[in-house]
Amino acid sequence: MAGNSIDLIHTTHAAAPGGHYSQAVLHEGVLYISGQLPVRAEGSHSADQPFEVQAAIALDNLVAILNAAGRQPSDLLKVTIYIAGIGHWPAFDRIYARYLGQHRPARAVVPVPALHHGYLIEIEALARGGEKMTVG
Amino acid sequence: MAGNSIDLIHTTHAAAPGGHYSQAVLHEGVLYISGQLPVRAEGSHSADQPFEVQAAIALDNLVAILNAAGRQPSDLLKVTIYIAGIGHWPAFDRIYARYLGQHRPARAVVPVPALHHGYLIEIEALARGGEKMTVG
Amino acid sequence: MAGNSIDLIHTTHAAAPGGHYSQAVLHEGVLYISGQLPVRAEGSHSADQPFEVQAAIALDNLVAILNAAGRQPSDLLKVTIYIAGIGHWPAFDRIYARYLGQHRPARAVVPVPALHHGYLIEIEALARGGEKMTVG
Repeated sequence: MAGNSIDLIHTTHAAAPGGHYSQAVLHEGVLYISGQLPVRAEGSHSADQPFEVQAAIALDNLVAILNAAGRQPSDLLKVTIYIAGIGHWPAFDRIYARYLGQHRPARAVVPVPALHHGYLIEIEALARGGEKMTVG
Repeated sequence: MAGNSIDLIHTTHAAAPGGHYSQAVLHEGVLYISGQLPVRAEGSHSADQPFEVQAAIALDNLVAILNAAGRQPSDLLKVTIYIAGIGHWPAFDRIYARYLGQHRPARAVVPVPALHHGYLIEIEALARGGEKMTVG
Repeated sequence: MAGNSIDLIHTTHAAAPGGHYSQAVLHEGVLYISGQLPVRAEGSHSADQPFEVQAAIALDNLVAILNAAGRQPSDLLKVTIYIAGIGHWPAFDRIYARYLGQHRPARAVVPVPALHHGYLIEIEALARGGEKMTVG
């Protein structure tokens, strides 16, 4: 009915979806990125690793999906971070600042009970959309 | 001040709002759907029902609101699912796939403590907006 | 790469960001407001105050950020409220209705474990964007 298309983003450089969802969706100039757990791009899990390692893997997935849509961390508009244990807040903020550099998008850090597979962190985001690129 | 209007969506085919909010808001081609609990359209509660029943009622509300805005599940952009007990993840993914069919919008499943009225699930979503229809 | 700009909103009339984020981001007609804790604009904390006081301070921050972007509560599209203890739901709904008046944007109330600094409430929102104003 609507002429405005919905494009699904897929890249093998981020963890494959573990259920009925796409890594990201592009619509009318906004990129909607699914919640990223600290699953590595090749599929291995990291739930036994320290928080810092898990946070970096989740952020790696986020950046890979941004890149697959032709975007960068500097295109992020709003990021929501779910963490199991609000005590991880300071460590998260440090790692996040390293990944984002000068850009400071809107953000919410939300404490939750243990995440899927026992993970300590999940990250979702909205970003300024771009041209979809074919990334293998 | 802005010319871009905000339209509120209302349908009796989904649970009426239980507080100070609308079922959904339409703005500039995006439909913002409020968190849907497993309250039936006629107002009866289901907190004593199994997770699968609750998930289906919450999804029924979501679909009814989409329809009230002239939209379908295939117009969903991003869905956020709050569940009390991450152990319900596999059951949710099965039911959700049945409702959505081939379409796989962006998604995050977020574990939470017990929801309002003791519910096990709440679902909110962003969708591609459409023409508002008058639905009774 | 994209011509559509991202504007960061800053006002001293709301609590300063406590980490690597901006108070709000404006992009293509939508204002993305970061999660607001009940930290007062001058920086003092309120975690020892009752829920009602905390809710009012978080909402004051939200309104101040809307105003800094030339917007009002009537421009809100979707509000997400994280509360530590779903038992605070009725009190929150009352206070929120007082702040919003006739306008009823889409909304989700999400129960969470204790928030950062032990706070009971955090509020984030999407709003209809406006002209950015320089507010000191």
